[in-house]
This record gives sequence, structure tokens and C-alpha cells, in this order.
Amino acid sequence: MRRHPEVVVEPRIDAATSIAEIATRYVFDPPRDDDPVIEFLSPEELAQAFAGVIPIELGDNVPARSAEALASAAELVVRHSVHTSHPRFFNQNFAGPDPVAVIGDWLGAALNTTNATFEAAPVFTLMESALLRKLGRVAGYPVSDEPGSLPPGLFAPGGSSATLYALQLARHRHQPDIVRVGASADRLAIFVSDAGHYAAVKSAALLGIGMDNVIKVAADDEGAMDVTALRAEITTARERGLTPLAVIATAGTTVTSAFDAIDEIADVCDAEELWLHVDGCWGGSALFSSSHRHRLAGVERSDSFVWNLHKMMGVTQQCTALLVRDPGQLGPCFATGADYIFQPDKLHAEFDSGDRHFQCARRVDALKLWLTWQAYGDEGFEARIDHAVAMADHVRHRIRSSDDEFATIVEGDFSNVVFVWVPPELRPFDLDSLAPDHHAALHVLAPRIKGRMQAEGTVMMGYQPVAEINTFRFILNNSNVEPADIDVTLEFISQYATEEWKGV
Amino acid sequence: MRRHPEVVVEPRIDAATSIAEIATRYVFDPPRDDDPVIEFLSPEELAQAFAGVIPIELGDNVPARSAEALASAAELVVRHSVHTSHPRFFNQNFAGPDPVAVIGDWLGAALNTTNATFEAAPVFTLMESALLRKLGRVAGYPVSDEPGSLPPGLFAPGGSSATLYALQLARHRHQPDIVRVGASADRLAIFVSDAGHYAAVKSAALLGIGMDNVIKVAADDEGAMDVTALRAEITTARERGLTPLAVIATAGTTVTSAFDAIDEIADVCDAEELWLHVDGCWGGSALFSSSHRHRLAGVERSDSFVWNLHKMMGVTQQCTALLVRDPGQLGPCFATGADYIFQPDKLHAEFDSGDRHFQCARRVDALKLWLTWQAYGDEGFEARIDHAVAMADHVRHRIRSSDDEFATIVEGDFSNVVFVWVPPELRPFDLDSLAPDHHAALHVLAPRIKGRMQAEGTVMMGYQPVAEINTFRFILNNSNVEPADIDVTLEFISQYATEEWKGV
Repeated sequence: MRRHPEVVVEPRIDAATSIAEIATRYVFDPPRDDDPVIEFLSPEELAQAFAGVIPIELGDNVPARSAEALASAAELVVRHSVHTSHPRFFNQNFAGPDPVAVIGDWLGAALNTTNATFEAAPVFTLMESALLRKLGRVAGYPVSDEPGSLPPGLFAPGGSSATLYALQLARHRHQPDIVRVGASADRLAIFVSDAGHYAAVKSAALLGIGMDNVIKVAADDEGAMDVTALRAEITTARERGLTPLAVIATAGTTVTSAFDAIDEIADVCDAEELWLHVDGCWGGSALFSSSHRHRLAGVERSDSFVWNLHKMMGVTQQCTALLVRDPGQLGPCFATGADYIFQPDKLHAEFDSGDRHFQCARRVDALKLWLTWQAYGDEGFEARIDHAVAMADHVRHRIRSSDDEFATIVEGDFSNVVFVWVPPELRPFDLDSLAPDHHAALHVLAPRIKGRMQAEGTVMMGYQPVAEINTFRFILNNSNVEPADIDVTLEFISQYATEEWKGV
Repeated sequence: MRRHPEVVVEPRIDAATSIAEIATRYVFDPPRDDDPVIEFLSPEELAQAFAGVIPIELGDNVPARSAEALASAAELVVRHSVHTSHPRFFNQNFAGPDPVAVIGDWLGAALNTTNATFEAAPVFTLMESALLRKLGRVAGYPVSDEPGSLPPGLFAPGGSSATLYALQLARHRHQPDIVRVGASADRLAIFVSDAGHYAAVKSAALLGIGMDNVIKVAADDEGAMDVTALRAEITTARERGLTPLAVIATAGTTVTSAFDAIDEIADVCDAEELWLHVDGCWGGSALFSSSHRHRLAGVERSDSFVWNLHKMMGVTQQCTALLVRDPGQLGPCFATGADYIFQPDKLHAEFDSGDRHFQCARRVDALKLWLTWQAYGDEGFEARIDHAVAMADHVRHRIRSSDDEFATIVEGDFSNVVFVWVPPELRPFDLDSLAPDHHAALHVLAPRIKGRMQAEGTVMMGYQPVAEINTFRFILNNSNVEPADIDVTLEFISQYATEEWKGV
């Protein structure tokens, strides 16, 4: 009966200790200034670099490695990863992880538990509820402070998942028996601007609604939804036999950081009896700033609101809050009442969040946000937003005073600036009168500049086609960025562009 | 234009440093032996404990707190959290986070990036692919080693999400245009044993299939699916006008760690042309042990297979692999081709995993698993499984030789043992001849014992109704557990039960 009584797993404290030193050094002495943003290697070169230490591929017999080899591998990981806290990392809608958030994440990982039940996560359950209530109040949602009342939402593993849950809540309100019997024959339609995030179509596919039934409403040149077009699309959809279900208003589009007119869209949703979901994954954090919260006016009228604190607020991946107007519907929409974990007869069962959620075990995402918020306070959160926009303003200022070397495609007035470098012969830039060969040449220039950035490790910045030209996107959300970092970045782009333009 | 040029966010290095020390101390000197598993406080008491340091609730004006206050709050977090690495924590299907995994998690958090693209996560993209290939080979899946070939799956934020994705893949094979046009009018049916995990019904609700169309197939007393009943249920479903879509075979049920006969179920799926999904969230890791991998015989015939490395393998939350037989379908099922991030014209775009996935930004879950695997090797992984079963065998041995003080309800032969303490007057225990009042009294005993465990902080163990009696579940997956921990745990249960029995 007692097989293998001798089997013992000795914890590898030696390896853990060495790697902890590397991780700690990285957090408190991160790459900056002229340190590379990335020491870029191709997949083949990376494989080769690791081959001499520990091959990345795991063979058919993986041996236990020495602590020295593991530490060397960890050093290689650091060396050839992208330094997202570097002030010249402008590549994603996250950057500059806050040190308190990173360490809060560490403490959560050390305590490794699930946020699904009070018994497994007593402190984190209360922190999560407290954060949801505070976020709800910041958004102007009705929030009950009565002890034991349901918090106005949940934490999700990212914006796409939160969007999925929100649309299911919308569908559940429309058809309350959907959870039991499945979707009715209604062909539902969801409306989002054509500058909105692709989470809408992904969610529609997964829900069985279908991507074709996500109606892309025209956006203006800045990226904000045309609300007149929305009204027309709803009418057209009804005429086509579709059943309009929900409108997604975007608060901070991915490319241009544009804000849809939520209040006006809320009027449409009221009149048409549609669910209003606000995608504030990027721009929701504008609510923290008295100078910028007006951009989300009307969010308090929405039915659901997704807000990624891991984007503008520098909290580590992931920290997504889904706020809902009616938390009483989370249970009916997601509960299954599994009696091995949500035992109704246990102590404090009413605090368990798990049966109001799609997920079962959930990593603790609340602690890092709670500690970060307490470290900086409301004023520090406001400063983070104001700093980001001030830096974006500096970008706009520099481009305007660049003697036409750079031109904005979408200047924006929040965190993002979409722009191109302009070849001398095309200054001042006039997109509309661009000859086809110049258009094509400019389109292929951005990937070449990006290749130089990566190869030399000087800058990381994303590009995307806007008006059918690959354009760079300055996205500001890293509180480590100073005006000089922006200036140097533009100088690098100028240099690479000038050199690469000769070859396109 | 240059508003707020003076806004600067000073990073709170002071607070981060203090909390990092607390987290590091916790990992390398964790609670053990007679340290409490939990210093339990009720929600009200917790609120009070924090009130003197930093209140858990965030008021309308959150001030920036001192480093001292933040460190004190972090100490309180640790003090009143559940110590899941303690050898007397048997409460969940995760326990004993491995120190290398915790520190690997830390390094990933420090490098805070998304695993969606090669450019943002060059090393992690390769590690993730390498891990999926290795896991695929361990499972006996066909895995291509050709450079640049698609890895056989993806990482998901937990077993429920992975199940959701797997069922969508099944539906997509059944109806390839579902992504575009939405679900057809077919009323789909999914089959899972009645001992299977509730992720099946949650996913069916979210997909719009409906919980009622998840057919619960009878399981035997140990918790394994009755395959004859499965065949009958499929026939009945067809007769009722349902379209059978998929069968979920469970490899390691949540309560009794039973394994469905995958090979036999695969025969049924072949004959009926159904998708076979294996839920190996719990028991998939048995594949690492030559003594136990036979329990999953036939998994290599499945279409999809979900495997939580954060359960038996001690990797931190979450680390879930979804393996798929045909990775070529991940793109068609989930892609949207967002051109601001998956630019087709950039370097190494073909390595991006993001457009084969539902999620966009994804936390790096691969690094911690890669480091842990390299630290222990295949043999260390095997030892972890063998140790868990050896400890469960010790539980079974102790219960058998307890002079009828304890009785197994489901003895099992893997990691879990479901049992009750038996009052002296009911020994030897005979469930079938139990008088109704004794039945009722035994049912309320477990929550009382659990309350004592929590109040005294001696043990954490879950209970659930089996045969309408609340029964405790010994679940073994913590490599820190030694036979003496099991012996002491049974002594505590004996003591609490004896004392509480007088009062029920």
C-alpha cells in the first residue's frame, strides 16, 4: 500500500535564491538612459544563445540543471527580453510597470492562492471588493456601502475576457433563460465603432453571435464614433431582421486614444433599450484626473464598464476590473453552485466571489493594485495620467515645431500621437495629394525603421496602417518618460528614416 | 500646449523595497510545523485589524501612505492570509507553490510584458512554444519539430477558460462558418460525467449552448464515467433532436481524483464522430509518472486536452496549457488580424501567438514553468507525482488502521481520499444502514470541524457532500507534506470531531 515512501522532492532553494537576486536587481536597478531597450536576437540566434547554457527546447529527457546554469539562463532571459520600463519603450499600451505594483505582484505570487473564496483568500476578498467599490464610485456607478453588499463587478484576466463577460451579461438580460436553454433564434447585433478594439468581434465569435453581427459604426478622423451613424446602423440592423443587443462605446481607442461621446450614446441606448458597455481598457484611467475625467462623461449611465489598470496605471499584467450596474445579475449569469467549493453551510460563504464569476481559481490581482493605490494615493494616480498627457503634449509640440520633418496623421489630445516622418521632398506633408509611389514607399518605411530600432535596441515603438500608410504611434503611459526621452526618440527616428528612405 | 510639464511621478522605491523584503522572507522562510496555517479573522475583525494601519476600504480621498504603513499593511496581509505552502494545507487542488516557480513568476512580473507577440516577448514566445511541444509529446500528441511550425496549443488563464476555448474549437469544426455568421440552429449537446468539473456547464452557458444541453453521464461510485451510460445518453440525445458535439473525459475528478476510461470514450467519439476533450486540469500531471501515466491511456487520441500545471506541479496561479490536435485551427477559430499589433510586414510576425488566441495581452505564464521544469527535470516532476500518491496511500493506510475511527467514502487510488470521522457508537461505519438522525448529524459535523480548523489555524481541509453527507477530502499535491503531517492532521480532526459531536 505505501508505495514509494522514500520519494522526496527537495526544493531547489539554491536556484530560487539566485534567480530572486536577479529579479530584485532588475526591479531596483532597471535598464534606462543609453541602456538598450532590447538586445534583439532572431529566433535562431536566441536558440543559439541559450544552447550553451540551457536549451530553450525541452528534449525527451530534461535533466535537473545546476543552480549556476539556471541563474545563467535567467540572466539570458533578462538580457534578451524587452525592457518595458525603459523610458524609450513606447511599443504597447502598457509600459513602466510601477515598482510597488511589481512587488505587490510578488507578494501575491508568494502567497499563491485563489481569489474565488473568502476561506482561501480572506484579505484579498475584502481588498477586491473594496477596490471594486472605489472604482465604481470613481466611475459614478451606484455603489452600496452596506456591509456584505455585493461589490459592483469583478476582476478578469484581461480586457478581452471582461468584454466577453459583459456581452454575456447583456445577452442574459435580453434572454434570462439563456444560461439554461441556450441562445434563442434571435440574431443579435452588437455595435462598436470601427476604431474600437477587436475584443468585440472575438467575443461575438465565442458567444456564437458571429463576427458579422458586430456592426462597425463609422468613426470620425480622430477615431470617435459617429453617433448619427450609430442611430442609422441600428435602424438598418432592425430592418435586416437583426435584434440590436448592445453598444460598445470606446473610452480611449487603441490607436488614437479617442473617446466616444458616451453621454450621447447612452441617450441612444436608452431610447433603443440597448445594453451600454464602455470599453475603457485604455482610457478608463482618465477618470483619475480632474483635467481629463470629462472625456468619460456619461460612463455612470453605462451597464458595464471594463477598465484595465495594467495599462495606464503601471500595474503588472493583468489587472482588469469589470464594473457592472447590477451586480445582482452576476450570480444568475455565471453561478453553478458547485458544492465542493461554495459550500452554503460554511463560515462567511456569502463573501465568496467565485460563484459570481466565470472563472474558478483566479490569481490574486487585487493586492498589487491595492498597494499601488495606497502608495501613491488619489493624487499620485491623477499625476500619472496628467504626466502621460503632458508628455503626449510634448510630442505634439515637438512635431509641430519640427519644420515639417514630422507630420501627425492623428494628432489627438490625449495620450497617443499617430505620425509619420516626412521625406524632405514631400515637406510640408499633404496626405491627400501624395503620389501613389510615394504613398507606397512611405508605407514600407515604417517596418524598416522598426527593424533598425530593434536591431540597435534604441527605441521600441509600434506602427500600424492609418490611411493606408504605416504610421508610428507614440503612446504615453510610462511615468519614467521625460521630455528628453521623447526628443532622443524623434532623433533616432529621423536618423533611421533618412538612411532607410534612400533604399525604399 | 505643454500643460503640466512639472508633473512628475516619483516611484515609491522606499515602499517597494520594504515589501520586497517581506515577500522574500516569506518565500525562503515560510510558515511550517506548528506555525498556524491561517490566523483566521472574520471579515469584521480583518477590517478592524487593518483600520489601525491602512483601512482596507478606499475612502473618497486616498492619501499616499508612508513606507512604514505600507510595510505594516503587507505584514498584516501575510499574517492573515492562508499559508498554502504549509504542509497542513489540504484545502484546494493547489498547494505547496514551488520556490523556483514563485521566483520565476517574480521574474516574469518584473519584465512585465505580454506573451502575445514575438517582438514584445521574444524569449517567452520561444519558451511557450517549447513547453507546448514538450507537453504535447508527453501526452503522445503528434508534434511537429519543424522550425517555425505551430506549437500544439496555447496557454490560458485557467482551466475554465481553456475548456471554453476547447468547446469553441469543437463547435468551429462542426460549423466552420460559426465565427462569421454565428451559431446555427442546431441544438448542440455536450457530454461529461456527473463527477466532472462545472467548467463544462459554465462554458456551455457562455457559448450560448445552454447548461441544459450539457448531459451529465452517470459516474460509478469512484467517480469515473460509465461509458455504457455515455453511449445510451448519446442515443437519447439524438432521439430528442439534439446534435451531439463533444464528450469531455475527466482525467482526475475534483472530489475523488477518478479517471475516466479515455481510450474507451475515444472509441465512442470515433464511432459517433464527436470531439473528444480531456479535462486533465487536475490529473493530467499523472503523465509525468511512469507509475501513473497509464491512467490517461488514450489521451493521445483526444482532440483537445487541458492541463493545469498550477495544480499538481506547484507552479503558481495560473499555468494552464490547452493542447490541441490540430493547431492549424486556432487561427481560423480565434484570429481577427488586428493590424496595429499583428502587422504582417514586421520581422518574425509568424511567431506571434496572439492571433491564434482569444486573449490579446497575456501575462507570461511560460517562464515560471520553464524554470521549474529545468530545475527539477523530468525525474523531479515524476517524483512530485509519486510523492503525492505515496502520501495519499499513507492516508488510506492510516484510515484502514484507525480501528474504524475514520471511514473512507471514496478511498480512491490516486491523490484524493474522501472520508468521514465516525462517532464511536456508529463504528464500524455502514453508510447504507445509517439512521436519518445520525445521517443529519454527521452532515453538520464537517462544517463545525472546519470552523475549528480555521479558528485554531491548525489545518485547512475542504469538505463537500458525497452521498448527502459532508465528507472531508484529503487532497495531496504539496511536496512539503510528510507522513507525520497527515498523522497530526487526523489527530486534530479526531479531537475536533469528538468535541463537536457532543453538540450536534
